[in-house]
Parts: sequence; C-alpha cells; structure tokens
Amino acid sequence: VERDPTYRILVNGAPADSVAALDRGLAFGDGVFRTLAVHAGRPLNWARHLERLAADCAVLDLPVPDTATLRAEIGRVAPGDAVAKVIVTRGVSTRGYSLPSSPRTTRIVAAFDLPDPGNAAREGVRVRRCALVLSEQPRLAGVKSLNRLENVLARAEWSDPGIREGLLTDAAGRLIEATAANVFLATGGRLATPRLVRCGVAGAQRARVMALAALAGIACEERDIDFAEIQRADEVFLTNSLIGIWPVVALDERRWEVGGIARRLQSAIAEDDARAS
Amino acid sequence: VERDPTYRILVNGAPADSVAALDRGLAFGDGVFRTLAVHAGRPLNWARHLERLAADCAVLDLPVPDTATLRAEIGRVAPGDAVAKVIVTRGVSTRGYSLPSSPRTTRIVAAFDLPDPGNAAREGVRVRRCALVLSEQPRLAGVKSLNRLENVLARAEWSDPGIREGLLTDAAGRLIEATAANVFLATGGRLATPRLVRCGVAGAQRARVMALAALAGIACEERDIDFAEIQRADEVFLTNSLIGIWPVVALDERRWEVGGIARRLQSAIAEDDARAS
Repeated sequence: VERDPTYRILVNGAPADSVAALDRGLAFGDGVFRTLAVHAGRPLNWARHLERLAADCAVLDLPVPDTATLRAEIGRVAPGDAVAKVIVTRGVSTRGYSLPSSPRTTRIVAAFDLPDPGNAAREGVRVRRCALVLSEQPRLAGVKSLNRLENVLARAEWSDPGIREGLLTDAAGRLIEATAANVFLATGGRLATPRLVRCGVAGAQRARVMALAALAGIACEERDIDFAEIQRADEVFLTNSLIGIWPVVALDERRWEVGGIARRLQSAIAEDDARAS
Repeated sequence: VERDPTYRILVNGAPADSVAALDRGLAFGDGVFRTLAVHAGRPLNWARHLERLAADCAVLDLPVPDTATLRAEIGRVAPGDAVAKVIVTRGVSTRGYSLPSSPRTTRIVAAFDLPDPGNAAREGVRVRRCALVLSEQPRLAGVKSLNRLENVLARAEWSDPGIREGLLTDAAGRLIEATAANVFLATGGRLATPRLVRCGVAGAQRARVMALAALAGIACEERDIDFAEIQRADEVFLTNSLIGIWPVVALDERRWEVGGIARRLQSAIAEDDARAS
C-alpha cells in the first residue's frame, strides 16, 4: 500500500487510484457511501455506520460488504487519524439502466486527512438558508446514495468562508437538513429533528445523537418541522460524523448562544467515542 | 487505441479503461452525459446533441468540451457503426461538496456495439406504467445528469423481455417520460409531449422529432399531460437517439395500431440522418 500525503485508496481490496470507466457508480450514481472519522485506526460510531450502510444497500438491492473486510480495509488505509470514505456501487455494466444479471459490486475505501477542527464545535457556526429546494423521492429518502447533485448545487450557492453550512428545505418549506449535516432544534428542553421520509440523508451521527439524547433523558422527536420554527428554537445544532456537533449561533439576523443541550451531547459523543472499541 | 469487441474508451483523449477513484462524477454524479448513434463514423443528430450537452453543462456550470475535439474522439472510438456515450464530469476533488477552486473536467468518450434493432420500430412495443414516481427538481429538469438512480429503480421494476419500456409519472400523475426515452401522444392529428420543467430528461431525439414534426406541418405542443390522457390518444410513441421512434402498441389492456404519424416521423428521421454531414 503506497502512502500518499493526502489520501490512500483500496478498490475491492487492492491499492488503486482508479475505478472502471464503465462503473455504474459513475454512469448513474448507482451506489451508496459513508464518510466517517477514524481515530488511532478505529472507525468511530462504527456500528451505526454499518447499520446505515446495510439499510442503504437494501434500498438499492445491493449486497452489503462483509463487515470484517470493510473494517480491515479501513485499518489499512487509515492506520492513524483520518477521514475514511466507503463507496459501494453496483459495479461495471456496459450500457443501459437494466441491472446486470450477475452484478459484482465495487467497494472503494479511501482515507483523507482530517479537516482542521478549528473552533466551530466550541464557538458555534453561522449558517444560511439555501435557495435550492430539495426534491421529494420517498424511495430514496434517508439514503446516502451517490446521487448528490442537489447537495453540490446547494453548496455552490455561497463562498463566504464565514458561513459554514446551508440549511435545506423541501417544497413545502419544511426544514430537512444542511448540505452535509443533519439538524436538530432544542425548544423548552426537548429536541426535534426532521423526519426524513421524503428527502434528506439520515446520517449515522444523527442516529447516535438521538440515542445519546435518550440516554441523557432528553426527549427527541423526529417530525415535520416548518422552517420558521427555527426562529423560536432555544438551540439549533448540526451533526455529522466529522464535525460531531456544531452549535448554530447565527442564521441571517437571528443569533443564539451556544446552548447547554449541544454541550451535553458533545460530551456524550466524546465519551461514546472513548468507550467504543 | 486498443480494439475491444464490445467497447473502446478515451478518457480526456487517451485510451483508458478507468477514471480516477476520486472523480466527482462517481462521488456525487457531478456531471452530464449523452448517448448517441454513430453510423459510418458519423454521429447522428449531432448538432442537437451538442446543443443539449452545452445546455446541460451550463446548468451545472461545467465548461463545455471543445466540439471539434469531441467529434474527433467519437470518430476514434467509433470509426464504423456504434453507440457512443459522452460523459463530462467536474473532475477530481478530494472530499466534500464544495466546488474545486480550479476544476479540470473529465471527458469520457466510449463506444459500444449497436443493439440489435429487432422489429420494435416496425411492429411497435408493449410498455408498462412504473410504480416509481419521479421527484421534482426544477433546477435539474431536462438535464441528462449522472444522477440517474430513479431510472435504475424504475427499470428494475420488471424483467419481462416482452415489455420494452416503462412510463414514468410525477407526483401529480402527469406523464413525463419512459425510463430511457421521451414520449409523444398523437390525438386528432396533433402531437403533444410532456413539458420537462419539473423533472425528466430532454433528449436530443425529442428535440429533433419536434423540429421534424413542425417541418411536416404536424402541430406539436409541449405541455402538462395527465397520464389518463394516454388512453384517449390515437398514437403513442417513444423516442431516443438509439431507437429512433418506437410506436407503443400496448399498455396494460389498451391496444393501438402502429400509427401514421409515427411512420411519417420515422421516415423523416431516416431522411435527416441520410442528409446530415
């Protein structure tokens, strides 16, 4: 395995920089992926990433990669601290949407340098509302598929580095997620996070935050959330597997202090990461 | 350039079987494509394919490949009769949705054997209505992007080889397209084809059929079409760059004869292909 300063990649277990030009992941986005943090060679929140990967593969009728193989490959590309990305596609086929009769999936495991954490988790972040409106496809809602053009278009809406994320809504004006994170509101000591039954990606960190909130005795409801409800929230925060929890401290004119629930859940995540094997 | 019995590929002009594993076309479906017929080394309906490619690149803010380069590369991979596929992606970036600061697009030009034309164009085809409902994303409507999971899921709904295509609708029950073709209805001597302002892919053959209909004095309207309107149509036919025109002769219990407008437009396409240089 060659060591590159910024990334290393295994394709179906073999060191490689490339994939077949006829891979259906490229042709149609016919696959799914996970992005996760690795500390000291250990993927964090691993069980939930595997759960989400299996659930997403099931939606696309893709075989789930062998867990031990995947774990070993992450260890190979990321023996220290890194971001790991896992992609599973339906593999190569010549042309046309029909499923290949005997598909052989492509499994890509790549490692990247961890981003500089900066002070976003501690001091909070400014966000904006994106103009792009998410489309509704219940068949793919929650799935982290390779069809991510909406996220690309939404993220391209701003370049101000002071704005760290963009909030996304559906056509009915419901809050759904951020371009690369899930979102929670805390109001009167209770949490709410958008139901992802029409659109959005259900992150593994979102699942963990809901579980840790329950353990901490903080009620958390998955439900439809009108975008305007953000204005009345005591706290707003973003979650994903790399950022952990980012408290939101500004959206347009609205300002928040970093809240106590975000702080408690940040600590709970850190303890969970330290505890897990 | 190596000759393979089933395909040949150029990636950015160089013979290759693979693309970078970190290409955004694979990571996010961040790119567009065209599929076209090549006869005797000459891409058919070429001007409209270039128009559609340019329009689609503009939507994604991708540079349009140089026309002469693209034409030459199609000639290299497909010196005889073939299917050519052109893919343009936003190229390689490490991780994350943000656009790379100086993107270098990836241009893939591949050739495949022409499918057996069979008797579908002459005798017509059976179709079904797909259960999958297309999502609505006006920002990407009409664009032949690499985000095609809906088409994959829809095509996976049936395996009966006697059914050649599946018709797709939006959430309001409007007819939009077939999984890999556009659709036209003829009623009282006038044509209608779905407006593609919310979803769907606007094919180059669709554009040509509209133009040839106008030349033949056949009115053709792009408008919203309720799915039920199919039942009242005198003719229904499908178009794409490989099939030309397939008359629809059966949808569930409804039967049609192959109609005169489909026949006239098939001849017009053949004449246009023979005329073009």
